[in-house]
Amino acid sequence: MYTKHNIGILGATGMVGQRFIQLLENHPWFQVTWLAASDRSSGKRYGEAVRWKLDTPLPAHIAAMPVSAATPEGAPSIIFAALDSDIAREMEPKFAAAGCAVISNSSAFRMQADVPLVIPEVNADHLALIEEQSWRKASGGYIVTNPNCSAIGLVLALKPLEERFGIRAVFVSTMQAVSGAGYPGVPSLDIMGNVVPFIRNEEEKLEEETGKLLGKLHGNGITHLDAKVSAHCNRVAVEDGHTESVSIQLRSKATREEVLAAWREFQPLRGQKLPTAPEQPVEFDAAEDRPQPRLDRMRGRGMAAVVGRLRPCSLLDWKFTVLSHNTIRGAAGAALLNAELLAAQGKLLPTCVAAASAGARA
Amino acid sequence: MYTKHNIGILGATGMVGQRFIQLLENHPWFQVTWLAASDRSSGKRYGEAVRWKLDTPLPAHIAAMPVSAATPEGAPSIIFAALDSDIAREMEPKFAAAGCAVISNSSAFRMQADVPLVIPEVNADHLALIEEQSWRKASGGYIVTNPNCSAIGLVLALKPLEERFGIRAVFVSTMQAVSGAGYPGVPSLDIMGNVVPFIRNEEEKLEEETGKLLGKLHGNGITHLDAKVSAHCNRVAVEDGHTESVSIQLRSKATREEVLAAWREFQPLRGQKLPTAPEQPVEFDAAEDRPQPRLDRMRGRGMAAVVGRLRPCSLLDWKFTVLSHNTIRGAAGAALLNAELLAAQGKLLPTCVAAASAGARA
Amino acid sequence: MYTKHNIGILGATGMVGQRFIQLLENHPWFQVTWLAASDRSSGKRYGEAVRWKLDTPLPAHIAAMPVSAATPEGAPSIIFAALDSDIAREMEPKFAAAGCAVISNSSAFRMQADVPLVIPEVNADHLALIEEQSWRKASGGYIVTNPNCSAIGLVLALKPLEERFGIRAVFVSTMQAVSGAGYPGVPSLDIMGNVVPFIRNEEEKLEEETGKLLGKLHGNGITHLDAKVSAHCNRVAVEDGHTESVSIQLRSKATREEVLAAWREFQPLRGQKLPTAPEQPVEFDAAEDRPQPRLDRMRGRGMAAVVGRLRPCSLLDWKFTVLSHNTIRGAAGAALLNAELLAAQGKLLPTCVAAASAGARA
Amino acid sequence: MYTKHNIGILGATGMVGQRFIQLLENHPWFQVTWLAASDRSSGKRYGEAVRWKLDTPLPAHIAAMPVSAATPEGAPSIIFAALDSDIAREMEPKFAAAGCAVISNSSAFRMQADVPLVIPEVNADHLALIEEQSWRKASGGYIVTNPNCSAIGLVLALKPLEERFGIRAVFVSTMQAVSGAGYPGVPSLDIMGNVVPFIRNEEEKLEEETGKLLGKLHGNGITHLDAKVSAHCNRVAVEDGHTESVSIQLRSKATREEVLAAWREFQPLRGQKLPTAPEQPVEFDAAEDRPQPRLDRMRGRGMAAVVGRLRPCSLLDWKFTVLSHNTIRGAAGAALLNAELLAAQGKLLPTCVAAASAGARA
Repeated sequence: MYTKHNIGILGATGMVGQRFIQLLENHPWFQVTWLAASDRSSGKRYGEAVRWKLDTPLPAHIAAMPVSAATPEGAPSIIFAALDSDIAREMEPKFAAAGCAVISNSSAFRMQADVPLVIPEVNADHLALIEEQSWRKASGGYIVTNPNCSAIGLVLALKPLEERFGIRAVFVSTMQAVSGAGYPGVPSLDIMGNVVPFIRNEEEKLEEETGKLLGKLHGNGITHLDAKVSAHCNRVAVEDGHTESVSIQLRSKATREEVLAAWREFQPLRGQKLPTAPEQPVEFDAAEDRPQPRLDRMRGRGMAAVVGRLRPCSLLDWKFTVLSHNTIRGAAGAALLNAELLAAQGKLLPTCVAAASAGARA
Repeated sequence: MYTKHNIGILGATGMVGQRFIQLLENHPWFQVTWLAASDRSSGKRYGEAVRWKLDTPLPAHIAAMPVSAATPEGAPSIIFAALDSDIAREMEPKFAAAGCAVISNSSAFRMQADVPLVIPEVNADHLALIEEQSWRKASGGYIVTNPNCSAIGLVLALKPLEERFGIRAVFVSTMQAVSGAGYPGVPSLDIMGNVVPFIRNEEEKLEEETGKLLGKLHGNGITHLDAKVSAHCNRVAVEDGHTESVSIQLRSKATREEVLAAWREFQPLRGQKLPTAPEQPVEFDAAEDRPQPRLDRMRGRGMAAVVGRLRPCSLLDWKFTVLSHNTIRGAAGAALLNAELLAAQGKLLPTCVAAASAGARA
Repeated sequence: MYTKHNIGILGATGMVGQRFIQLLENHPWFQVTWLAASDRSSGKRYGEAVRWKLDTPLPAHIAAMPVSAATPEGAPSIIFAALDSDIAREMEPKFAAAGCAVISNSSAFRMQADVPLVIPEVNADHLALIEEQSWRKASGGYIVTNPNCSAIGLVLALKPLEERFGIRAVFVSTMQAVSGAGYPGVPSLDIMGNVVPFIRNEEEKLEEETGKLLGKLHGNGITHLDAKVSAHCNRVAVEDGHTESVSIQLRSKATREEVLAAWREFQPLRGQKLPTAPEQPVEFDAAEDRPQPRLDRMRGRGMAAVVGRLRPCSLLDWKFTVLSHNTIRGAAGAALLNAELLAAQGKLLPTCVAAASAGARA
Repeated sequence: MYTKHNIGILGATGMVGQRFIQLLENHPWFQVTWLAASDRSSGKRYGEAVRWKLDTPLPAHIAAMPVSAATPEGAPSIIFAALDSDIAREMEPKFAAAGCAVISNSSAFRMQADVPLVIPEVNADHLALIEEQSWRKASGGYIVTNPNCSAIGLVLALKPLEERFGIRAVFVSTMQAVSGAGYPGVPSLDIMGNVVPFIRNEEEKLEEETGKLLGKLHGNGITHLDAKVSAHCNRVAVEDGHTESVSIQLRSKATREEVLAAWREFQPLRGQKLPTAPEQPVEFDAAEDRPQPRLDRMRGRGMAAVVGRLRPCSLLDWKFTVLSHNTIRGAAGAALLNAELLAAQGKLLPTCVAAASAGARA
């Protein structure tokens, strides 16, 4: 009989924490056994501590769970972390040092040289970086990160093109959903009937994470993609789903049909049977006015990047629109898929040190 | 005692027609004396025919005016035209042929070689093209057009930079308000909590109109600007105000301060006292998160282009955001300012032929 | 081996028609075999004729189906009708006369004395009225209707209270979603950031349908509920889900706990195993700020009426809020549940006449 | 030469504080000379401390003003207070005790027996209560309040009917704008595409304030209106403008024309020339679908209560919809009009004690 991995969630009451709980309900490999949040919440039942904002019910057994303090003592050895960057910077290393596999959605360590920034379909090989981490060497623990919610859809759409044609330049202008800012997040007075053409640090993240994600693993480090990426980030009155207008310049010319084939045939996880992986990671919609966040964000159960409107660009080579669900593919689902990949690779088994540590904690 | 010019409005019941009425109320130079709309409306009182959608009251004296049939008979010699393109293509020439000055907001003739496409602050000299028009030669009538609502804010922001530094390439991604589609226009089910990454023909218009507006008058024609312009057009859940993310490449490098100075010192209409002209056609807002349509669209009484977020572009030279009110600066106000410029140049005075024609009509 | 009933959909391209298709996909008892729409669509493939507006994909086998003309020839004997009232008034009788069971969502015949207006949990016994219909007598065909989308949630909440305590008076003020108006329906300029305090004929429907639904079957007719119902109907910027503020006066006093028990214990379909019936038709949410359409409309797979905020009314007896999904529980799901009830009662089996008729058509 | 009254604003950086500044710009009687806010803001320039959220520019001279600590020292003798209730409860008495006329928008003291709760058109005579206040007796200072934003439009619509016909019962269901919750206020995730059927304490305020406002001054107290008022309060996705569905029962029957005449002829401030008073306090709109917040909230420069949809109620006597601008008529404009009324009555002149106090402060 198969035993599920026990999962702990750091930052369990926030929007991404809630998505973790939603996506892990009935997960075939994982089960949530530990929930942690800020001091304000710890000690309460989760159902009392959370303001549940999803449109599926909070599972009763989760509601009844206690909220633990955010310390490694008593935590399971697999931690999904949905923390604000400042807190993550301080807290995630403590869990990694204690032997935990920290599957992080935070930006805190994404650009650190020995921390893998991974999208399973794009750069699964980057996971090898964890062996460079001092935590890994000391306790078996490590940190693995997924990208910013605005980068993930873009990079999924770019990867098949980078593989076949090479990418020289990318222009991207985003229209991002309010859920990306968490809860309470964006005040309604700021966004109803409005556009806010600024999201702090977002353009920087989108530009630099794209370079790392599409970079090559060489020895013990990543050589970033040699391409110019210019991002404009905007907030719009959408609940979920980031829409991005993209222009790209390729290294070798490609026809429309070649671009479409690259997307259609992009199946890097085929055969791996990761439960959260979408069948078609990059879905092309041929309708003239798609993708749209309200209609298309749930494709592939929220895990597909949906592209559309492929047409020539008078300045670079091709223009298109890409959409992805920012709190599923762009956050909780991204981390979950990373964890599934790690599990499939046997990297969620406690090493000796971690086992000892886990034993000590238990 | 000063006599105001009599103005007729074609397409008076639509969204742009309503804006014409709003902006012409208490206008110092013009007065509305004739309203025309489709057959469905003609014969009714305007107040019965219109579904007034503005948040200032419909003036009672306008509500009481009859809606005329859309034919030149009985129309005054100055016509503000707010017609759909298909209808404009058929109808505007009839009015021009009858000796009317047709100040058109439609796209039907914008790109025709002998029709001026004008923003007074940008290319007032292009008005000379009217003398090339066969209508002008025959009856004194002519057609003058203003640009698409997505082009006008962009071009206002580009013009001062083109003058000083030259423009080599422009990337623009728009987030356009629903009022741009008229009424009933965009169904609520299509746009609430959504983005539609497609507006029919809009990218083409934005790209080609920019070239003509920033072009040079040579002899009896316009040499379009030699620059690549690539546009992505999106519809967002905003009532009024088009927001655009822009990257530009200049022909000669400019510092941030030089760009700001170009905008600040852009005062091409200074001294002309056109009533609808904004004091500062291009307003820069230094706040990190502006311009925003809800907060900034009414600057300069809806006639300013508001720019913000000037920052280096890793791909081209500079990035910024520009906002303008799409039904004021981008439509009715644009046409009105064109008319004021024509009036200041004496081109609204009936020529002999037109006067005869007007006499015949009267 | 079980054979599914063949289902035809009249008005298949509209919003309710789309919901029928969505809800019937993988239905255990029914399968869609015939789609009809207006002349504009008939002859096309469904996938070309429809503007699919739901966030689940249009099933490929449905997209490939032809759209038939809206006539009984060739139609199956069970018809789900999602027609505008004017068209329904003319067309539904033709299908009933041809021997079809017409399960109608239209208002055209709801108040006709011999047409059952049914919510299965509320007044299943009213279905007996079909035997009074002349169509039934002639061909075996009949019309069964479900209520207006604003009535159905209200009446589900009222029924358990009417049963136990009697209802003397109801005050209801609605906040209705835009999808209730179909597509294109409500223009975005009318509803974004706005409330429209008027929906044509809606208050009349809500008041009179409530009386019939809660009425008693006596002999061959319905005695309407003897209660005063006063409705205010408003449109708000919500995509799906009608929220209603309700005050009620009971005939015999009830405590808060008695009201809650009445709702909790309301299980009229228990044991009938209708596939679309929600486990708990009236769900009470104890949170102080629920129900909310965005969070709660999908409870019971869109088929529950969610009540909350039960508190004393200073004018009548009790106040509460009720929410239901207007295009599922309030339209397509309502009709589907009616069909399931009819199937369970054996009333979807063709009678002799209908069989002959169906045979003649086949 | 006329000297304007100096005005101080408590809570100057909040949404209502911003409206005070907007409405006082170019006011003929008042000028802002002192701004106070929380400790976080005090010491900064107002332009740095505020997140200006209005669509008219922050006046430069106001932006340059320092933000003072919220203590009476140095404050002028007329204070407009826009404080949260908890803070108001502590702070407003200090200013009153120091001899200030505190014109408060807070709920803290509205229901206190010796504090007038006033709408100038409704119950100006209640201002006499200030003479009962211990602060008044000691220092000349006093507190005057205006009602909750949801009460003010309702009571304006009720007052003319109460005067002529008497009111026995009121049912009201509100749809309130997000600006009523201040800034940051309502999170966008809570209200976009949603309705929240709960606003803390709002129903209680609306019910009890209506009773006091329509009450009679007897001796040194107010006898509340003897009528049942039942309120449902809902938050909707509207920026500004509270819309309310109302049913009323009158003490003596009135025809539709009598009701309309009562509203039309309601001119209690005629001749007083208060600058902020609307010409027509209660405007009736005969269109079938008005009033609407987006289109009608600015009638009477945001100070009118707009009524519409008058029709019989099957439960009480009449149904109608009333709309008023919640941060103008319902907050800052309400307080300002109270101040104008006090000024017109000579009650803003410092009394001896207050003068001494003001002298001591100066």
